[in-house]
Amino acid sequence: MTESLLQRRARVLGPNVPTFYIDPVHIVRGDGVWLWDANGRRYLDCYNNVPHVGHCHPRVVEAICNQAATLNTHTRYLHEGIVAYAERLTAKFSGGLDTVIMVCTGSEANDIALRMGQAVTGKTGVIATDNTYHGNTAAVSQLSTKKPPIGGYAPNIRRVPSPDSLRPLGGSADGQARVFAAHVLDAIEDLEASGHGFASLILCPFLANEGFPDLAPGFLDPTAEVVRRAGGILIADEVQPGFGRLGSHWWGHERIGIAPDVVTLGKPMGNGHPVAAVVARPEVTAAFREAFGYFNTFGGNPVSCAAASAVLDVLEDEDLVSNAAQSGEYALERLRALEHPMIGDVRGAGLFLGVEFVGDGMSPAPEFTARVVEAMKARGILLNRLGRHYNCLKIRPPMPFSRANADILADTLTEVLAEMPV
Amino acid sequence: MTESLLQRRARVLGPNVPTFYIDPVHIVRGDGVWLWDANGRRYLDCYNNVPHVGHCHPRVVEAICNQAATLNTHTRYLHEGIVAYAERLTAKFSGGLDTVIMVCTGSEANDIALRMGQAVTGKTGVIATDNTYHGNTAAVSQLSTKKPPIGGYAPNIRRVPSPDSLRPLGGSADGQARVFAAHVLDAIEDLEASGHGFASLILCPFLANEGFPDLAPGFLDPTAEVVRRAGGILIADEVQPGFGRLGSHWWGHERIGIAPDVVTLGKPMGNGHPVAAVVARPEVTAAFREAFGYFNTFGGNPVSCAAASAVLDVLEDEDLVSNAAQSGEYALERLRALEHPMIGDVRGAGLFLGVEFVGDGMSPAPEFTARVVEAMKARGILLNRLGRHYNCLKIRPPMPFSRANADILADTLTEVLAEMPV
Repeated sequence: MTESLLQRRARVLGPNVPTFYIDPVHIVRGDGVWLWDANGRRYLDCYNNVPHVGHCHPRVVEAICNQAATLNTHTRYLHEGIVAYAERLTAKFSGGLDTVIMVCTGSEANDIALRMGQAVTGKTGVIATDNTYHGNTAAVSQLSTKKPPIGGYAPNIRRVPSPDSLRPLGGSADGQARVFAAHVLDAIEDLEASGHGFASLILCPFLANEGFPDLAPGFLDPTAEVVRRAGGILIADEVQPGFGRLGSHWWGHERIGIAPDVVTLGKPMGNGHPVAAVVARPEVTAAFREAFGYFNTFGGNPVSCAAASAVLDVLEDEDLVSNAAQSGEYALERLRALEHPMIGDVRGAGLFLGVEFVGDGMSPAPEFTARVVEAMKARGILLNRLGRHYNCLKIRPPMPFSRANADILADTLTEVLAEMPV
Repeated sequence: MTESLLQRRARVLGPNVPTFYIDPVHIVRGDGVWLWDANGRRYLDCYNNVPHVGHCHPRVVEAICNQAATLNTHTRYLHEGIVAYAERLTAKFSGGLDTVIMVCTGSEANDIALRMGQAVTGKTGVIATDNTYHGNTAAVSQLSTKKPPIGGYAPNIRRVPSPDSLRPLGGSADGQARVFAAHVLDAIEDLEASGHGFASLILCPFLANEGFPDLAPGFLDPTAEVVRRAGGILIADEVQPGFGRLGSHWWGHERIGIAPDVVTLGKPMGNGHPVAAVVARPEVTAAFREAFGYFNTFGGNPVSCAAASAVLDVLEDEDLVSNAAQSGEYALERLRALEHPMIGDVRGAGLFLGVEFVGDGMSPAPEFTARVVEAMKARGILLNRLGRHYNCLKIRPPMPFSRANADILADTLTEVLAEMPV
């Protein structure tokens, strides 16, 4: 049945639609941190951040059902839902991030954020890291495309080398913050010289797709200073680290200690319901709306706001940010105790953890990492890999992930590594 | 309370967030073709196409609730929902439109469609009409922006004059089809000469935002021929006319008689749930995926597919496309019987109808039209206006709209017009 489903899928969705795993899983049910496949097999979900407060959390489901049965319309009529949610959301931010534009996907949020930079500065240049991902619209996919788009790379984008834990920019961890800021400054000067000018730096404050290198608080201070001095705006893409995932803080930018002008939110915001947002200082939002106008039919509809609001309820009432800190610290301890010659690094924060595998001379070991991922799946643990070399396990479970879940993860990884040829 | 909600809304959503009506309505509940405001006042919804099968249709709500309580994850795991829905959706199309990419908004769908044109042709030029709207991403908003974006208008876009019922291109209704095609050909030649080359023509096959001029079947034949000869692709944006709204056909492109390479879908697809899609010939989808890669986290998730599938169920089981034809024809008859010196035209198809108001010498009367809209709202009928001059009533109710509803609409409009100073 799964094979036939794969064939039907390829026919109707087209070629090159990726699945996870060599033998893809056919998931039919979810509950908390657990997923079940069509054969009734249970998997521990150590990967998915979209079902942030747990798969099918009853309070989120109830909120969606109640609102969907009552009213679902757009924001050109007044509705309490979006206003109350936006007030509640902005209260989670400091630094004057007091206005919200609600949309449906993180891609739409970042597509707006880039235009906010343009509206504020009157310039078009954007800087991102060279191993990032900010979404799939024509504009933002330019930030991460690995091959030249039709018509060529956008001329107003500069990509700077990503920081790295094992291979620090400039050769030493101590100097990495200054070297990164220097790359950003070079890119700014290049954009200014090219005539596009510098509008914004966009980055995930946890540098998740870059492999979330261990960066001390203050690491981005020199970079933020360079951006400010050049009159650009700083966009923090919180799609991955946001909503308390890092345990110590609600937002990745708080943890690393920067004050962005714009924050974008996505995946975990509605526990799977398609809702996303841009949070910005009022004058930034005003400049964007003045320069571009904007309306999003589904954005901020009552059901989306009910779902997003229920996610905040559960995060608060179940104390899930503290859980991310505590379970995450415990899981990190357990992972740090793993023994295998190919473990190059174990790192992370809260419930965003990784194990980086390397070979001789700290060379990245992506194939080995892929085999670990497959072996873990075969034993009922879903996770994946990321980073520039795809040699780092990506462990990013739903927020109710417990110490007992961490034990299952670590015990299984111990077994898998024990059986893995070096 | 409404005033305070407006103030809170402005503070937290920012300035220039439009509402409908001088005194915006505060809607709290919906059911079928009816909406209720916070004071318990009932309105007949003659405007909203998003709640396609009726506000809060119980079968759609049930489908969303059941699936949200069971599983909501992404398409990198196998799931029957997206495959079954895509099979069912493509069965509604002829012309080899056999593959689907599911996304969350019509904007995302059109953003992909433009890149499909690029992938197929290796060129970047896009042609649209000069009074259209295809969405809000940075790329597609370039097709409809009324003011120069920061950095200037995109150099690869050409806008051609829209057809019109009362003011036909070239001065006569008979020659309008050829004149429109000639404008498209000029734009193609200009794009080719500019070096961008011609990739695609995108249009709503009902020309909804252009004021949905009365165009006979075959009107777009010369245009389609020009596009084909130039090797470009034809994109039909079915966000407004699709899913049976026009009564006679499931899709606007069938009604006017063209065979697009790509069709985009949005608003009505999930009855308000944020789901949208691109339907294309397999080789077009393959070219896009090969050139750009694509993944959309929320796109095609099980809940979105359940909502979209329930919409098809209701359309079929309640025979709503036939209803659109019958109620629409009856409503059109009633509107055609209206008497007022400023009625310049009454037109439409299925449940997409309009009354165009004009002054001396058929000059557009937007202020008069705006007053009609407000007066209708004051009497409990929600509708709006559109077209190049915003002088045409936009009547586009949910699909269960009945003859009795049409009577309320027409009777109220009769009263309003009787009291309107000329």
